[in-house]
Parts: sequence; C-alpha cells; structure tokens
Amino acid sequence: MSNSSVPNWNIPEPALRRLPWYLAYIKLLKKKGQTHVSTTQIAKKINVSSTQIAKDLSYVNVAGKTRVGYELVVLIEVLENFLGFTSQHRAVVLGVGSLGAALLSDSGLEQYGLKIFAGFDIDENIVGTTINNIPVFDVSEFAMRKKDLKADIGILTVPPDIAQETADFLIQNGIGAIWNFTPFRIRVPENIVLQNTSLYAHLAVMFNRLSMNTAAKDNK
Amino acid sequence: MSNSSVPNWNIPEPALRRLPWYLAYIKLLKKKGQTHVSTTQIAKKINVSSTQIAKDLSYVNVAGKTRVGYELVVLIEVLENFLGFTSQHRAVVLGVGSLGAALLSDSGLEQYGLKIFAGFDIDENIVGTTINNIPVFDVSEFAMRKKDLKADIGILTVPPDIAQETADFLIQNGIGAIWNFTPFRIRVPENIVLQNTSLYAHLAVMFNRLSMNTAAKDNK
Repeated sequence: MSNSSVPNWNIPEPALRRLPWYLAYIKLLKKKGQTHVSTTQIAKKINVSSTQIAKDLSYVNVAGKTRVGYELVVLIEVLENFLGFTSQHRAVVLGVGSLGAALLSDSGLEQYGLKIFAGFDIDENIVGTTINNIPVFDVSEFAMRKKDLKADIGILTVPPDIAQETADFLIQNGIGAIWNFTPFRIRVPENIVLQNTSLYAHLAVMFNRLSMNTAAKDNK
Repeated sequence: MSNSSVPNWNIPEPALRRLPWYLAYIKLLKKKGQTHVSTTQIAKKINVSSTQIAKDLSYVNVAGKTRVGYELVVLIEVLENFLGFTSQHRAVVLGVGSLGAALLSDSGLEQYGLKIFAGFDIDENIVGTTINNIPVFDVSEFAMRKKDLKADIGILTVPPDIAQETADFLIQNGIGAIWNFTPFRIRVPENIVLQNTSLYAHLAVMFNRLSMNTAAKDNK
C-alpha cells in the first residue's frame, strides 16, 4: 500500500533511528563536492555493515545503481522527506523550567521539522512571558488553547513527580505523541507515540565509564 | 575489588541506564510518604521484571530485606551516589549555537552532577559573551583554558559537518568523554567515553509513528 509520498510504516524503529546518521554523513559528502555514494562508503564511516545500510535504505523509496551507488542530491531529499524533517510538526512544551525554557529557545529543532508553538506552566512568574517569541500560557488554559495551536506533540519537561499525571492530562486533551525528557518512566496507551530522551541516563553512563577509565590510569 | 565507595565498573550499560528510572520512581514514593519499596512494586510501575530490577540493584551496594524490601532513604542515597549525581563533573560545550546555548542555560543538569564551566565557539558575535553566567571563549583558546577549567567532558553541539574534527580536537586536548548531540556518528578511540543523544532520531521515530496513527484513524 506504500508509495513514494507516504512513509513506509513497517520500518522497524532501530532502522528508523539509523537513517539520520546516514543523512548527516551524506550531507557532509555533498558539501565536499561528491555526487554519488555507495553503502560501502557509508559503512566505513558509520560502523554499520553495508548489508544493513542497504536493508535500511530499502524501506525508503530510493534506488541505487550498480557501481555508481546512490545519487547524493536525490538520497538527501528522499531521506529528509521520509524522516519528516521537511514538513512542520506542531508541538507544545509542558513545564517551562530550566530544560523546558532551553528547548523553547532552541530554534535548531525547526530545521528538523519540529516547531514549538507554546509553553505551559503553573508558575505565575513564567506564565504570560515569551521565550524566543513563543508564549507561555497557564496550564489551565490548555484545553482552550489546544484548538488554535493544533499541536500533536507534547514535550514533557515537568518535574519527574508530576510526569505521569501531566502525560495523562495531555492524552486526555488529544495529544498524539509525547517526547519525554523527564527521568520518570511514564506509561501511555498503545495508540500514543512515546519517545524517551534520557539525558540523565546518558550522564550516568558517562560518569561511570569516566571514573572507570580514571581508575585504570591511576593503577598503571 | 569493589567496595561501597567505588562504583561497580562491571555493570552493563543497559542496567546502568535503567537505574535512573528506578531512582525517579522511588523518589516519588518517598515524597508520598512511603518508607520502603519492593522490586515487585517498582516492577509494576516501570515495566521491567522484578527479577531484572533485583539483578540491576545487585550491582549497587545496597541490601533489601525480605518482606519489607529496600529502605527508601538509603536506596535513594546509594543510587544517587552510585550514578554520580551527587558529585560534580566538569564539562565544556563546543559549539554555542542554538542547542549549545540552550544547554548552557539549563542549570537543571547540575542537579544530576553535570556542571558546565565554559562554552567555545568561533563566531565573534558570541565569543566574549556569557550565558547563564558561563563565559563563551574562542575555540583557539581551548588548550590554554583547559588547564583552569579542568573539564573531563566535552559536550558536542557543533554543526554536524565539523563534528568529527571537533571531537578529534577535544581528544587531542585531553578530554575523556564526549556527549554528542549532533546527528553525526562520530568515532572515538576505545579509551574515550562516548554517549550519543540523538534528538533527531527521536524526532524521526515520533513523526513516522504519528503519521502511521493518523492514517490508521483516517481509514476507520
């Protein structure tokens, strides 16, 4: 049932997650003046086998040619469209504390198809202000504002102890996807899209491995 | 060779990544007035089997008691120490664009043990300014500044096309860990700690699954 204008929905999540790596690399090659790329060349740089890369790219509607490989301009365009980076996805931020405010001020996400239209908080010092020209509303106005905002994605940057109830609230109000930045492991119904970005888990791994390396050095 | 004051270095990365979830949940339980917790109770909420949780916690030097489980105040303290959230880890940000600036202004990371002491960039409009009281220096001063900054961790928020060369530069200058926020898949020597936070991969997954759900609804 898929055609070139519709994303392939059978693509497994790990493959989907690898596509942005290929995209970043081939954009660099194009900048350097290259016109074509082979899966072998990508494989050398990205640490994924060329067989895997060919399989991942088979989910995307793009054809490589024997010997010359993929045409860069075409592959870049097709990948960017496929990944949704060229269309605008509307989002709101719940919890405009330090991290929430940081995300509001990061306009770089727009280049990847995410546009934040509003923040919501309960703190009267923040409500009514704007950050990066994006208004911050009182969370009590959420249901009323949502119609105009037409946002499908809720970015969750509230304190961890209210992460679950805020997620439930978003879902009740028709949000279809939650991007969870809190360290709390929220649960959502099957029909709701959930992505966890665990900054704190990454920190924990870094700290642990760093102290391991430091100790190894000290023992030498 | 491990004792209570030294992190257990044999802990596998997936276990290490799960510990912050347990921590967030048990902090919530403590806030609600609970004094003890069992792995069964955590399992119900976090979607990880209680056997797995018991195994993950066995890497941490903490003992649960039959029937009563773990004492919350003890478990929280031990986990926070083990994960490195209670000590200060010194970091610098390379690339003070939109995302880099956002990270400089997110003081919330300090609560998890990460303190950013400087940003580095080449843009003369940014160099010499401060963000959230953190100075931004010219990247040419990196080697000179590094001694005073005593930073082990380099946060990579440069444009993707210079991600690899900037990583190489950091490593040459003695940085031990790289937190890569670029979509570029950098490669580092084995003795360098690397964590990738792929915001764009998360976006790609969200966009794809959202359009899948929307189409499924439309077909009803």
